[in-house]
Amino acid sequence: MTNVTDDNLIATVQRLVDENEIQRVLFDYAFHLDAADPDKMIPLFTPDLYIAYGPEHGAEGAEAYLETLSNENTGIAAFFAGTSHHVSNVVIDFVDADTANVRSVLYAYHKYNRERPDGIVYGQYHDIFVRTPEGWRIKRRELKHAGTETYHAKGAALNPIPRNSKQA
Amino acid sequence: MTNVTDDNLIATVQRLVDENEIQRVLFDYAFHLDAADPDKMIPLFTPDLYIAYGPEHGAEGAEAYLETLSNENTGIAAFFAGTSHHVSNVVIDFVDADTANVRSVLYAYHKYNRERPDGIVYGQYHDIFVRTPEGWRIKRRELKHAGTETYHAKGAALNPIPRNSKQA
Amino acid sequence: MTNVTDDNLIATVQRLVDENEIQRVLFDYAFHLDAADPDKMIPLFTPDLYIAYGPEHGAEGAEAYLETLSNENTGIAAFFAGTSHHVSNVVIDFVDADTANVRSVLYAYHKYNRERPDGIVYGQYHDIFVRTPEGWRIKRRELKHAGTETYHAKGAALNPIPRNSKQA
Repeated sequence: MTNVTDDNLIATVQRLVDENEIQRVLFDYAFHLDAADPDKMIPLFTPDLYIAYGPEHGAEGAEAYLETLSNENTGIAAFFAGTSHHVSNVVIDFVDADTANVRSVLYAYHKYNRERPDGIVYGQYHDIFVRTPEGWRIKRRELKHAGTETYHAKGAALNPIPRNSKQA
Repeated sequence: MTNVTDDNLIATVQRLVDENEIQRVLFDYAFHLDAADPDKMIPLFTPDLYIAYGPEHGAEGAEAYLETLSNENTGIAAFFAGTSHHVSNVVIDFVDADTANVRSVLYAYHKYNRERPDGIVYGQYHDIFVRTPEGWRIKRRELKHAGTETYHAKGAALNPIPRNSKQA
Repeated sequence: MTNVTDDNLIATVQRLVDENEIQRVLFDYAFHLDAADPDKMIPLFTPDLYIAYGPEHGAEGAEAYLETLSNENTGIAAFFAGTSHHVSNVVIDFVDADTANVRSVLYAYHKYNRERPDGIVYGQYHDIFVRTPEGWRIKRRELKHAGTETYHAKGAALNPIPRNSKQA
């Protein structure tokens, strides 16, 4: 529990500002994703980004990720007719002044460009953020899945959230 | 990226407080809407409010909006048996010290008073907030739609969110 | 509306920090619940906790709540194959420096360990938080329901959210 004093005042406010700026990156990511605008998503990451949506699905480096997002057959504008990414439950743990582990919860709606039911994803983003001269950026992002409904990817193709099972 | 110093400390904290007060208006709106309580929704807006849910659906001025919300046949208590408005991804851009552009993401559940399936809305609020002597108020609100499921309003009746389409 | 000055600066920043710490408890609760980890949920509450999910469903005291959550037939790991709790719209009203009324909105997804459709809950947490030497803790939690979809509990078994009905 933080007790605010004259001595820690500036550092405490800096922390609050950093937390808001980190949250904004999460929300700008969702906004540009739902706008199918990869060119505005990439600057939210460090050039050496690592992204994993599943054991075999992800991207390393800004160039590879931009290609994945922009691909004319499988990119976000081509694959989805519309999406809506709802990000909440943001929890930020600073590792040091310039690095933070960030956890958030995702509800994502996907309408496809082909004839199939809309897909829903319930998940968690587990991110590492770093402070850069241009602001806080995502260096590493892992999407873990609590469940899906009629989503195009399933089961072993997705990383699960951490969860205890009943001992049989 | 904000670097907090003695010189900008008070202004920075004022900004954080303003952001929290703006968020609260968004959440109080949702709460009073889900409570079907128009009388508590109206004071969250300026008297000259402008609201657009679609090209032909909205309200201008507090009196017109109150009538829309309270109408005994089509108002929120009459039309819906229950609603739940989940507002997240709040992004605030101050235009000046007393004006802010505010973007948020909406998941809205609607249970109707007539026999039909529940309706879901995936959307974005695009708001202009202004500081008044009584606090931050919504001056202009536009609801844009990423998608719907079995909602009573559809297609051209709704404003779409900004989104790039695949170039054919 | 708060006007930040030298005189109220420390108290204002303390308030912002307290609000963030309270939010974090809400989000840690959801995280540990979705991880089916009751041992990490209990420390988020005061030992004399009171929880009500419905008129006849809840728990009094940490020991009883831990037993409810951990029960080998009806506990969270046994009953659910997976859950995802999305908490947003957090509104905090301080009663005094060490007590706060906290309201939030819940979207909860439940996948069952038996053959039945997934259950959705639309609700509101109405909490009382207290400051303790170890941090902010939940002393009283009431879950109120705006609606459900194929959830295992229904109707009179659940507390409703506050809502006006149409006068017939």
